[in-house]
Amino acid sequence: MIKPRALSGFPEYLPAQQLAFNRVLSIIRATYEAHGFTPIETSGVEHRDVLTAKGGDDAEIYALTRLNAGPDERETDLALHFDLSVPLARYVAQNESQLVFPFQRSQIQKVWRGERPQAGRYREFYQADIDVIGRGSLSLMYDAVLPAVVSEALTQLDIGPFCIRINNRQVLQGYFEGLGLAPAAVPQALRILDRLEKVGIDRVRADLTTTFCLNEETLSPLLDLATAGLASEAVLAELEGQTVNAVFDAGVADLQRVLSGLRDLGVPDSNFQLDLSVARGLGYYTGTVYETRLLAFPGLGSICSGGRYENLVGNFHTGAFPGVGMSIGVSRLVPALLEAGLLGVSAATTAQVLVTLLQPEFQGEALRLGAELRAQGVNTEVYLEPHRLGQQLRYADRKGFRLAVMVGQTELQAGQVRVKDLQTGEETVVGRAQWAHDLRRRL
Amino acid sequence: MIKPRALSGFPEYLPAQQLAFNRVLSIIRATYEAHGFTPIETSGVEHRDVLTAKGGDDAEIYALTRLNAGPDERETDLALHFDLSVPLARYVAQNESQLVFPFQRSQIQKVWRGERPQAGRYREFYQADIDVIGRGSLSLMYDAVLPAVVSEALTQLDIGPFCIRINNRQVLQGYFEGLGLAPAAVPQALRILDRLEKVGIDRVRADLTTTFCLNEETLSPLLDLATAGLASEAVLAELEGQTVNAVFDAGVADLQRVLSGLRDLGVPDSNFQLDLSVARGLGYYTGTVYETRLLAFPGLGSICSGGRYENLVGNFHTGAFPGVGMSIGVSRLVPALLEAGLLGVSAATTAQVLVTLLQPEFQGEALRLGAELRAQGVNTEVYLEPHRLGQQLRYADRKGFRLAVMVGQTELQAGQVRVKDLQTGEETVVGRAQWAHDLRRRL
Repeated sequence: MIKPRALSGFPEYLPAQQLAFNRVLSIIRATYEAHGFTPIETSGVEHRDVLTAKGGDDAEIYALTRLNAGPDERETDLALHFDLSVPLARYVAQNESQLVFPFQRSQIQKVWRGERPQAGRYREFYQADIDVIGRGSLSLMYDAVLPAVVSEALTQLDIGPFCIRINNRQVLQGYFEGLGLAPAAVPQALRILDRLEKVGIDRVRADLTTTFCLNEETLSPLLDLATAGLASEAVLAELEGQTVNAVFDAGVADLQRVLSGLRDLGVPDSNFQLDLSVARGLGYYTGTVYETRLLAFPGLGSICSGGRYENLVGNFHTGAFPGVGMSIGVSRLVPALLEAGLLGVSAATTAQVLVTLLQPEFQGEALRLGAELRAQGVNTEVYLEPHRLGQQLRYADRKGFRLAVMVGQTELQAGQVRVKDLQTGEETVVGRAQWAHDLRRRL
Repeated sequence: MIKPRALSGFPEYLPAQQLAFNRVLSIIRATYEAHGFTPIETSGVEHRDVLTAKGGDDAEIYALTRLNAGPDERETDLALHFDLSVPLARYVAQNESQLVFPFQRSQIQKVWRGERPQAGRYREFYQADIDVIGRGSLSLMYDAVLPAVVSEALTQLDIGPFCIRINNRQVLQGYFEGLGLAPAAVPQALRILDRLEKVGIDRVRADLTTTFCLNEETLSPLLDLATAGLASEAVLAELEGQTVNAVFDAGVADLQRVLSGLRDLGVPDSNFQLDLSVARGLGYYTGTVYETRLLAFPGLGSICSGGRYENLVGNFHTGAFPGVGMSIGVSRLVPALLEAGLLGVSAATTAQVLVTLLQPEFQGEALRLGAELRAQGVNTEVYLEPHRLGQQLRYADRKGFRLAVMVGQTELQAGQVRVKDLQTGEETVVGRAQWAHDLRRRL
């Protein structure tokens, strides 16, 4: 006998919570599809060299071995993907001649991280990605489209106020180069800046000054702006007033166009903000970068991040395929929403109606009633165990059906069906002829 | 530079085919949900001892190691699930006190088999399962409900005629025991019988007679019936006329009730058949067993199999949890349907309308038009690259949009929008005020 136990870092849900999770995925998927982000799915498994191609990335990876093979055959060169960006790059490089560019794709899948088990760390989780990939070039306007789509998805989810924080790495790159840092040293500065929210401004200032022997004052124009809490327009005006270098100016100009694009796209000002502290740790972002906070959940971290990259498929293809992408971390988002009661969790069934059975001999009639309801588009289950009505109604209550239909001799002889509203307890009797149609209208 | 290459056994699709695949999954999912089979999802990863608990099962399993960990930490006790039945058993045993029984669940997920790479063998594939699990007991009527749900799903898919072949292992068990086989020897006889379609009746007869020292004639009542091609009712009548033993009689009675239940459920006679050669290799089936063939694809094998098991969670729990389940092998089904042209593969986009751009300065207006259409429920993409109209329309054609909307100075000044039907080539001009509403009605 083996004790079944939960696997830490591999989240699972009971049926009611699973339905809430699925609704979140459906809303995100529908919003992505409404904008023409067409779903693809890549295998969960890649060649190891594909996953480790990027080199700098030290993601924890699960490699696969064949448990039941002989010792010589056990090792494979396969591993589980740890994000959806590397698989996208491989997919685009592999299928380039058959894809149509700009390639707008969505991808909602599980990914795995081979981490040491640790509280709060997911080892299996869902990501819901959108990216647009261009061949040769890609309009900057897509950098505004992506947060607009995410803003719409989060609005549809109805999970409270949120803010998509937007920055441009060229602004930071230009700024730090302007302070005398070698271009190759800038990523380290960005990683320090990226921790601003976590460790605070004083620590970031100290780390930057000591690591790069910088004068505190030269950092002020950036750090003061990053923490002043000004509106996007005010930050932009400040940036436009600074004289740094061409890289900086290009970044500021792009930021300005992206923010203005977001307004053209009808995204409310409250849903996004220019935030100079957003740097993103990942090396491959080259322009616009995003992070997203739910305002009621400051401790949750970013629930949707991403950015612009100039060289998606560089490890797999000689062509230039710039792109921009964002990724919603669904598996981290949903538990927080469930805990806060922000997702409706009511039923543990996809059916609205339960057909119960007062006498076993009317099972055939119960099955026919169920089929009639389903033909009207009403999801319906028929209870088939020979239990008393009380137990059947308890089952209906516990699973959260809306209505119970009762079939017994009295009703059948009178050409009627009895219907119980499980929320109000009210019972009504409807005629057999039009009943399925009537019921559908009540739901 | 790493050459991106397809992984044999890990199927992937281009966008248009992926959309067709997703439609198949959606139809199956919707049918399952209409009957109250509520979706759950288990982690793709289980403890190894959970996966290997069944002992007799020699499924090829992928074990996980942590690629980037130190030598002492690399090995884990984790592995990828190879089906959805073992995870279901573990899930039910683990969550038993919080589930409501009968537990009707659906589960549509990928599973992995750690096989040697081989043409035609999938190493990653989708299964779409439904099961009903009882606590203590489970009505035999569920053995009719399951094929009825599958019959409805396959009918909805509109992929040609199919036949769900139904048998009961007690019939076979009783028959072989009646011939003098020890109960423990019967599984081997069933595995021989199960190969009837593959190797032919003569080979099966020879294998059974030599393996068990049986007289050919004692096998005739079974093998003749299994190959006579009689209608279910005729086979049933023959079985009912035979005197064997109590196990046999119980199996025949159950078969009779399941077939009659299928008729109560409104399943057309052409969609199912009693077939005595269906034995199923897996050891845990104890009663009803199913296999399903698409009549136009005799070489495809069973696309949906399953059966009744009396002891789902035996390795994990002391309680009795009988169940019955079926599983559609979606990843094997879809490629055959695609190849035969039985799935509509037209568009490589989820959007119906592409808003094109005649002059870059009207980008804002194009974005507003797109938002208006989406607000009417029309999936719409806005083309944002500064390309000529010809290139934009080629993009729309290649991706399979239904309509292209054109925004230019002339139209804007006249308060109009130009719309091109990409199937007929016809162009019309509609007024700006009601246009989104009009367009929705045309689609």
